[in-house]
Formats: sequence, C-alpha cells, structure tokens
Amino acid sequence: MSIALDNYSRLCVHTITTKPWSLPQAVDAYTSNGVSGITVWRQALEGRPIEESARILADSGLEVVSLCRGGFFPADTPEARQEAIDDNKKAIEEAAAIGAPLVVLVCGAVPGMDLEEGRHWIAEGITAVLPDAKAAHVKLSIEPLHPLYADSRSAINTMKQANDMVDQVADPSVGVTVDVYHLWWDPDLETEIKRAGKSILSFHVCDWRTPTRDILTDRELMGKGCINIPRIRGWVEDAGFDGAIEVEIFSDDYWGQDQHEFLKQIKEAYISHC
Amino acid sequence: MSIALDNYSRLCVHTITTKPWSLPQAVDAYTSNGVSGITVWRQALEGRPIEESARILADSGLEVVSLCRGGFFPADTPEARQEAIDDNKKAIEEAAAIGAPLVVLVCGAVPGMDLEEGRHWIAEGITAVLPDAKAAHVKLSIEPLHPLYADSRSAINTMKQANDMVDQVADPSVGVTVDVYHLWWDPDLETEIKRAGKSILSFHVCDWRTPTRDILTDRELMGKGCINIPRIRGWVEDAGFDGAIEVEIFSDDYWGQDQHEFLKQIKEAYISHC
Repeated sequence: MSIALDNYSRLCVHTITTKPWSLPQAVDAYTSNGVSGITVWRQALEGRPIEESARILADSGLEVVSLCRGGFFPADTPEARQEAIDDNKKAIEEAAAIGAPLVVLVCGAVPGMDLEEGRHWIAEGITAVLPDAKAAHVKLSIEPLHPLYADSRSAINTMKQANDMVDQVADPSVGVTVDVYHLWWDPDLETEIKRAGKSILSFHVCDWRTPTRDILTDRELMGKGCINIPRIRGWVEDAGFDGAIEVEIFSDDYWGQDQHEFLKQIKEAYISHC
Repeated sequence: MSIALDNYSRLCVHTITTKPWSLPQAVDAYTSNGVSGITVWRQALEGRPIEESARILADSGLEVVSLCRGGFFPADTPEARQEAIDDNKKAIEEAAAIGAPLVVLVCGAVPGMDLEEGRHWIAEGITAVLPDAKAAHVKLSIEPLHPLYADSRSAINTMKQANDMVDQVADPSVGVTVDVYHLWWDPDLETEIKRAGKSILSFHVCDWRTPTRDILTDRELMGKGCINIPRIRGWVEDAGFDGAIEVEIFSDDYWGQDQHEFLKQIKEAYISHC
C-alpha cells in the first residue's frame, strides 16, 4: 500500500500537460506553485537555442526529470530507420544539454507491420543509440503503451513486454516507465512491476475518462476516471521506486481552459488521488 | 497457415454490420447475395413478435450462428446484478426461439470497480444463467474485449483471461469467441488460441482503422486496417474451429453508405483478406 501524499516534493508536471504555455511560462508557473519537477517535451524546446532552454531550467531550481520523447524506431525502409536513430541521438544530446537524466521512449509501430517485427526494430534501434546515451550519461526508458496504440505508436503494450525488452537489451542504462494510463488494465501488472524492480526509471499519472471521446487527447485529471492510482503507486514503490510522480495529461478540454486554474486542480488531484 | 477462402459457405454477417436494415431487409439481402449465415443482434428483434422473427429466419435458409449479446454482469448493487441475470435469461430464451445455438457475452465492467471484482461478478453471472442455457441447448460464449473497453464494457481483455474464465466455470456449454479486432495485439494470442482448442465457439472479423476516430463505431472492412486476419484464422482453425467467419463491423461511415454496395465490399474483402 502507498502512503498518502501530503506535499509536492515528488510532483513533476510534463510541459505537454500545460501545452498552451511556452517553456518560460510553464517554468514560471510551476516554480511559483511549488511544483518540484518538470519533464520537458521536445516541442517546448523549439524556437530558442537549447542553451537558453537549459539556462531557464537551471535557473528555475526545478528538477528536470526527463525528456519526452524518443523512440519510433520501426519503419519500412533502412533509410527511415536510420532517420529515427539519428533523431534519437539528437534527443539524447538535447536531454544532456538541459540536464535531463532520462529520455522516455515511445517505441513505435507501423500499421500493418507484424508486432514481432516492430519489436525487432525497437531492439535494434535502442542498441544503436545506446553508446550515445551512455556517453552522455542519459538513461533510456521503454514506456509500454496501451494496446489502443499498437497500430501506429508502440509494439510494446504490456509491462511484461517492456521487461522482456529490458532483459534483451541487458544494459543498466535501459529501464522502463510505468504509466498508469497505459497499464492499469494489464492483468500481470503487479507481478511485472515487481519483476522490473530497480529498472523502473519513471512513473506517469493521469486518469482514464469514461467515455473516452478521443483516442489521443481526452485524458482525465487523477481521480476523475477509473484508475486506482494509489494502488499502482504502491506497487511501484514496493519495487523500490521513490522518484518523481509525473503528471502527463493530454486533453483538448483542459488545454482550452485557464492553465493556472488547471495547475491548481492538478495539485489538488495529486494530493487526493495519487 | 489458413487456406485461402474461395466461396461463401462460411460467411456470416452480423445484423449490426448493416444496421440501417431491418431484420427482413437484412435477411433478403444476405440470402440474395449468397451469404450463408446471420448473427442476430437483439435490436434487430425489436418491434415484432419473436415468433415472426423466428419464421423469417427459418424461411430464409440462413444459418443462425448466434445471438448478440448477453453479458454486462458486474454492477454496483445486488438489484442491478439480478436485472442483468434476468436479462441474460431472456437473451437465452430469444436465442432458443430463433434457433441460435449461441449467445455471445460482452461480459461487462463498471468504471472504478476493480477488474478482479468485475471478473468475480462475471463468473457469478454466468453460473447463475447456465442452467437456463443448458435447458435451452444454447451455449454461452465469453468474448474478450480490447483493453480499450476495460473501463465500462468488459473486465475480460485477453484470450488468457477468457480461457481462465472458461476453466473456472468448467462446463462444456461455456466457451470463447475470438474477435480479431479485440485480440490482434495480444502477445499470447497464438498460445492461448491453441489452449482454447474446441472451446472456441465463434470467430469474428473486421479490421482496425488507423487513425481510429471513434472508440466504438470506426471499425474497418477486412484488409483496410492493420490486422493480419488470415494468420489469426489459421491459428483458430489449427485449434479445431471450422465454423462461420462472422463479419461484425460497427462503422458510422459504412452505415451512412448504400448497404447493398457495402455488402458487395464485404464479400470482396472476405475473399481477399480473411
């Protein structure tokens, strides 16, 4: 069982959660509201030199938890696969530049490609970028995605498949991300979180809305959906994870609202429902 | 490996696939187009005495493959659970009345109820209606639903969970339905289809559209999505299944088109992509 949260020392917010804000706006709002960490989406780095983003982050005192996202390794041609590898190397560079110790991987899938083949290219891709990651002291985290995304976003859809991939790559710089949205339904979740143990590198929260009106951008605030987040947090902590609790919500609804008000709701939901 | 289909002797169409048609219209179109079987959704029985529907079906010469659908057993109160049981008994009666040897179960889930508890009520519900099913010579089939529907439609989301439930209920009148839409991503599908063996009672096909624009009503014609249907059919047939291949497509797009034209497309897709 997880112990109730009573402060924000582990609260991290993803820049995509408050997508209408630029990086400087997000950093300002997070710091002035007592948020402790930030996960930076690559979109939030666009439009200014990476050194400037790095300085903004360093000056803020926020913990930079991770960079989202690398991955998307499977592709139909060698050229496209090489492009993906190059882009992941660039993501690793960016992570190192902004002081993020981790790049989260949405591993990729190609509609119509067998999922087994997809996983083959994922393993190849991770292996290809691993030397860069190690040289930059940046870890790589495999995030299993809900089977809803098995067509075009990830051929890794269960915690077991993520653990198997970690075993296959067999390098301490590669671990897993547990995202409650993607995994809450997984019948082997408790067992496979235990198996993952110290290879759990990050933990993402939000909630599953019923009915879900859009497959990408209709996630809910914690407590407003069907996911038992404290239970999953308990499993993750029992496995040895004590890092950031990262709020990652894609939602046209919330993005359309006042983001300061939304951030207040996030803080309340974090205390009450994580 | 499956052997290519070259005739329509196993082609069954679900009435919901051609939802704009009434039962008499569907029966007319299916028979005049050489469709061999029909699976009747309960909506298609509304508005006329069940005896009349039974006569329409008997006169058509179509094989009545199954009735869709029973299930939805989990609920928050004993009263609501009893209502579900009563409704399933009614579905069994209707199946017997129209000569359907099978009721397909969408087992049910309640948002926020633990999936384990959901599965408990599913087992209780099936056990409660089983005597009626046996007396009526109607089998019950557990259809695992995609994890996308774990919030509100089914706490059984993998082939393994369906097989486990069949083992738990342990009665030859209870088996499983393999629907490629729900299970194509399942990493244990081949193994668990083998395990299911003769308990596979029916087989549903359609395709997964990328991008999926609606979580309920955006299924695709076979061959227009990412599912390797012949491969899954091969597994099902290797396990001993030689029954109907049932086309079940929910699609606002296709429902908005000329249904005779759509049925022609179904027949082509059946030969080319199943």
